[in-house]
Amino acid sequence: MNKYSKIIEVQGHLIDSLVLTKIFDNVMDLDGKFEVMKISVGKLKTDESYAKLRIIGKNKSHLNEIMTVLHREGATTKSQKNCKTKSASKNMVFPDNFYSTTNNHTSIYHKNKWINVENMMMDKCIVVKGNTARCVPIREVKKGDKIVIGEEGIKVSTPERPREGMNVFQFMGSGSSSERPTQHIAKKVAEDIKNTKKKGGKIVLVGGPAIVHTGAADAVAKMIKTGHINAVLAGNALAVHDVEYATLGTSLGMKVKDGTLAVRGHRNHMDAINSVFKAGSLKKMVQQKKLTRGIMYECVKKKIPFVLAGSLRDDGPLPDVITDIAEAQRDRGTWQALGIVSDVGAFLPMVAEKIGAKK
Amino acid sequence: MNKYSKIIEVQGHLIDSLVLTKIFDNVMDLDGKFEVMKISVGKLKTDESYAKLRIIGKNKSHLNEIMTVLHREGATTKSQKNCKTKSASKNMVFPDNFYSTTNNHTSIYHKNKWINVENMMMDKCIVVKGNTARCVPIREVKKGDKIVIGEEGIKVSTPERPREGMNVFQFMGSGSSSERPTQHIAKKVAEDIKNTKKKGGKIVLVGGPAIVHTGAADAVAKMIKTGHINAVLAGNALAVHDVEYATLGTSLGMKVKDGTLAVRGHRNHMDAINSVFKAGSLKKMVQQKKLTRGIMYECVKKKIPFVLAGSLRDDGPLPDVITDIAEAQRDRGTWQALGIVSDVGAFLPMVAEKIGAKK
Amino acid sequence: MNKYSKIIEVQGHLIDSLVLTKIFDNVMDLDGKFEVMKISVGKLKTDESYAKLRIIGKNKSHLNEIMTVLHREGATTKSQKNCKTKSASKNMVFPDNFYSTTNNHTSIYHKNKWINVENMMMDKCIVVKGNTARCVPIREVKKGDKIVIGEEGIKVSTPERPREGMNVFQFMGSGSSSERPTQHIAKKVAEDIKNTKKKGGKIVLVGGPAIVHTGAADAVAKMIKTGHINAVLAGNALAVHDVEYATLGTSLGMKVKDGTLAVRGHRNHMDAINSVFKAGSLKKMVQQKKLTRGIMYECVKKKIPFVLAGSLRDDGPLPDVITDIAEAQRDRGTWQALGIVSDVGAFLPMVAEKIGAKK
Amino acid sequence: MNKYSKIIEVQGHLIDSLVLTKIFDNVMDLDGKFEVMKISVGKLKTDESYAKLRIIGKNKSHLNEIMTVLHREGATTKSQKNCKTKSASKNMVFPDNFYSTTNNHTSIYHKNKWINVENMMMDKCIVVKGNTARCVPIREVKKGDKIVIGEEGIKVSTPERPREGMNVFQFMGSGSSSERPTQHIAKKVAEDIKNTKKKGGKIVLVGGPAIVHTGAADAVAKMIKTGHINAVLAGNALAVHDVEYATLGTSLGMKVKDGTLAVRGHRNHMDAINSVFKAGSLKKMVQQKKLTRGIMYECVKKKIPFVLAGSLRDDGPLPDVITDIAEAQRDRGTWQALGIVSDVGAFLPMVAEKIGAKK
Repeated sequence: MNKYSKIIEVQGHLIDSLVLTKIFDNVMDLDGKFEVMKISVGKLKTDESYAKLRIIGKNKSHLNEIMTVLHREGATTKSQKNCKTKSASKNMVFPDNFYSTTNNHTSIYHKNKWINVENMMMDKCIVVKGNTARCVPIREVKKGDKIVIGEEGIKVSTPERPREGMNVFQFMGSGSSSERPTQHIAKKVAEDIKNTKKKGGKIVLVGGPAIVHTGAADAVAKMIKTGHINAVLAGNALAVHDVEYATLGTSLGMKVKDGTLAVRGHRNHMDAINSVFKAGSLKKMVQQKKLTRGIMYECVKKKIPFVLAGSLRDDGPLPDVITDIAEAQRDRGTWQALGIVSDVGAFLPMVAEKIGAKK
Repeated sequence: MNKYSKIIEVQGHLIDSLVLTKIFDNVMDLDGKFEVMKISVGKLKTDESYAKLRIIGKNKSHLNEIMTVLHREGATTKSQKNCKTKSASKNMVFPDNFYSTTNNHTSIYHKNKWINVENMMMDKCIVVKGNTARCVPIREVKKGDKIVIGEEGIKVSTPERPREGMNVFQFMGSGSSSERPTQHIAKKVAEDIKNTKKKGGKIVLVGGPAIVHTGAADAVAKMIKTGHINAVLAGNALAVHDVEYATLGTSLGMKVKDGTLAVRGHRNHMDAINSVFKAGSLKKMVQQKKLTRGIMYECVKKKIPFVLAGSLRDDGPLPDVITDIAEAQRDRGTWQALGIVSDVGAFLPMVAEKIGAKK
Repeated sequence: MNKYSKIIEVQGHLIDSLVLTKIFDNVMDLDGKFEVMKISVGKLKTDESYAKLRIIGKNKSHLNEIMTVLHREGATTKSQKNCKTKSASKNMVFPDNFYSTTNNHTSIYHKNKWINVENMMMDKCIVVKGNTARCVPIREVKKGDKIVIGEEGIKVSTPERPREGMNVFQFMGSGSSSERPTQHIAKKVAEDIKNTKKKGGKIVLVGGPAIVHTGAADAVAKMIKTGHINAVLAGNALAVHDVEYATLGTSLGMKVKDGTLAVRGHRNHMDAINSVFKAGSLKKMVQQKKLTRGIMYECVKKKIPFVLAGSLRDDGPLPDVITDIAEAQRDRGTWQALGIVSDVGAFLPMVAEKIGAKK
Repeated sequence: MNKYSKIIEVQGHLIDSLVLTKIFDNVMDLDGKFEVMKISVGKLKTDESYAKLRIIGKNKSHLNEIMTVLHREGATTKSQKNCKTKSASKNMVFPDNFYSTTNNHTSIYHKNKWINVENMMMDKCIVVKGNTARCVPIREVKKGDKIVIGEEGIKVSTPERPREGMNVFQFMGSGSSSERPTQHIAKKVAEDIKNTKKKGGKIVLVGGPAIVHTGAADAVAKMIKTGHINAVLAGNALAVHDVEYATLGTSLGMKVKDGTLAVRGHRNHMDAINSVFKAGSLKKMVQQKKLTRGIMYECVKKKIPFVLAGSLRDDGPLPDVITDIAEAQRDRGTWQALGIVSDVGAFLPMVAEKIGAKK
């Protein structure tokens, strides 16, 4: 028997979700060896599989290096040790050997049992407090916080690949949409929006100014009005373009209804910004009946929350924009994304129509 | 007065069409000098302008170099000389100093009068025969053809920038469409197709397989059926994808109606090709009632001419494909092009709907 | 004579810089008419040209609309009127009819003479104070500021197209670099940097993290060390990647020297961020000898100013980052830009070598 | 026991190469069921694995559909049946149920033993002759050829993912190069070229005209001269640009050494084409000492074979170009490709330098 070896166990959908493949790959990539001691693959697709492997390194540090990686893939050792923590020496500073999170579901072995880490986000640390664990960004770390260090006692669950049903994520797979039938994708997106709403889920629009410029603002406003959008995350530009279009009919001076340039239209962009400053805010502009249509109008009317995050190239920016990005970041986060390559000026009106958000 | 100078004249829409600007630029770029001797700009926009300039070079060859360029811009010299020709010494060979054509309207001064060059294309030579002149590609040059050489006695007309009306070329200008309202562009394209037809013009579709793959084939087939497309220039791929979709409902094995993959669908592509070989040609396949819908079907039914030009990566290619590209080239040529950046799977159905080519 | 007409004058390089062409275009696009009353084009290229035109509208408002546009192109009327101003009614609000600036040199006719507007930027207003005029962004407008309104008494100078010399701007023209010889462009950029320095000019680098990721960080650090870069404008990511590379040899966990992934390398990114928080700032990290090489190190050592502007997706961001974008904007501004399409990992080392910034 | 079930076996690197994962996925995607009867995973990484599964369908045709797909993944049934063939009814026509090939290594079970299919290419058929099997394109099928039909008795081997060594394919993985250090990639490509040559392999360049236009032609010519390139596959454009550059110093009229436009340079492109027609061919042009440098010159001098395939937009094309694409296709084929996103004008000179192909 090899001197530098450890026995690991893994269970779950080992074959489906490539767990076993990744473990084999990692061991070999790191120039280690493995022996399969036991493997049982679920007879039926609903059954879980189980594997027990001996991992062999060249020396102690090599073995530890391999184990570090395998822990990330969900492998556990027979004699599970509790995860270790260390106190933050001052505000906004991690201990040196801090565990850096992924965006997958994570558990830690704490006081001899597995507990879930809440508020999972990528590239953060895990703070343990009593019997709970929580994902925390560096700027929110306080002196004395107990922060997880090393890699032991941590288990990361790879997301299982969905089989049943057929929402747009499953339909598209991981590939790009550039080789798919556009009208069908629009239909799928519309169906997913409706199904998500039906199940009590929420739809959040993260949009840019091209929505207005390519003539899709009416479709989006309508989807907000009909209750198909529950929150809007955007930047200054979407709001400014929307107000320009709503008040002057142009987007950067171009008449949206026919694509021609308005006389003196170059100033419409700044005129829109000025009109919001004059009113005091988007909400006040609606209350003063100066803004009577469009995306931001419908948000205010329907009390749909919107967050406008500032960026370096903003004109203005509007009084409603959160100019401190450290503050704006608290409202943001993506767990998974799917790319659809289309023309937003054609695609969104198609989605709106299929969703039944007609005028 | 400068020893190495010549007097040139230009007339036309000198300001509008930038002729004068280009002449000034060219002289300065080549390190020459000019003196404006006379200039009269049309009082009204319909009037032509006239300018007379003295062009000054450093020496004889420098002056000739400048004159060569100015002739291209339409400048003529007071004492207009006839253009010179030289006979081709053998088939498919130009004389050394051959004049290489542009795609703009060109006249040559021949037997003391200006005559138009017919069949204007880019990067060809001009062959003079009797009182006519014609643009000819290198592979069609015959030994003994009188080919224009040098730059003297040649006048090129820059296309005038259109002012009135508003077809899609004028609407878009030279810029890309990426910052324009999609639905309006589709409307404009539809209107232009209708207006062109009304004036007795013809619409030629130059399309690729993405039309089928993104689900726009039905819209195109309909536009052919309703007479809005008068000819189709394409490659092997459009026809193969169209036949696969028409006969099996898939495009490269993907069901176009819902984007899912057909079982054993990878062979549908070759199955479609085989079905055409089996019939003998696309036309015969229609006659044998094996091809009963789609783009190629409508072409055969409506007797719309189509040219399928081969390319190196073709599968098959179909018996209808012209595999010799030297032959296929005789059917091709673009004088001016305008880019619209959109998603063809969303854009073409929109155009078809606005054109009234409804099912 | 037409009832609704005005006489305008223009002078300058009317032909070269397309001023006359634009005036003709604008009048015709707006459905107006013009008559050329007098035109004199400079005999030599150094001479200015002069034109006097009668502009004719359909009615008073139509004529005014045309005049508004022509003023922008630099046309003046014989009886020049002073520009008008109006006081801001409160902080951060323009008067309704405010003049919205372009980024071209602008003069206003104030107290019967032309004065230059200082600090020219786009999409701002002009504040007049005594005999001076200044470009001011909306958030810096104070109640009572005298702000220019309307379009009268304002003259915008189109930048003249340069003829002599040959810096990279002139060499490239307005086109993209994708069809140009890369090695020559790198040489031109290197020459321009050297010439700019020789004339006492300054070079500011605006860079992103791809510099580090593609292996060009050493070249950039060297250019700072050798004094070829005088300031750095960047975001959080450049600094974080640079610190990760300088301290751990990786960029997002990838070893830059051979492109392979470091074990546990995914945490290096956050480790780098943590190391800066631990030191307190980039400068302190250098002083504590924890950061001993790289772009940020050279900046600190050479006392080269750097501005790191925050953005919504920043990790951290570093303590050195300006998280309020309204504040960060005060350090930014582009007057003209030229696009070079290349691979930064190959291009910058080439520039550094040609500039003589060898290790 | 289920009425509609079959037992399959698979062996090989089931986990590493995802064979088992794909089988599970396919069964589930097709709404079938499976039971794992036996599984043995190799103890060591060099060991093969073995699995025996019962596959269950809803009815006979459903089961067959699933089996069709599993055969493709390399599954075999215990009682292996010979593959079936059918004779082609005429030239260039497959039998209806023909087996359409992939580009992976394929065996057929013929006369009770597995035989390899030679000349594997994608989207072709398999012709059986005596004890051999060969991949044949549709246009080369002759009446009477015995062509494999159906899916039974066919085994496709998924390529194993390489572990050891580190050529550029392994280094890059399947991802794009856009996030990798350019100089290191160039070094890797150079090493692979040298190692391939050392092992007696051959390097084939497939290049376009951008090589000349971006100033990389000298580097490529040098690599041919030093024996690092053994064959060139290109189109008309590479050869024409190369001849233009070699004889006139320009590429489409632009001087490659400094990026400026040559006077009358627009005709250089056609001049280059004419010079080849005048000589008769590229080879004759070299013999006549009219072509004395460049890529095509080095090919002729070193007797390096080159194939120039025609395409629809060719100017000329040169006498050396194969204008019939059905003929040109016989020289082409790609088994696997790896994308490196860089700037060819910077990248190729870097590769040439690292390969030691110095002037």
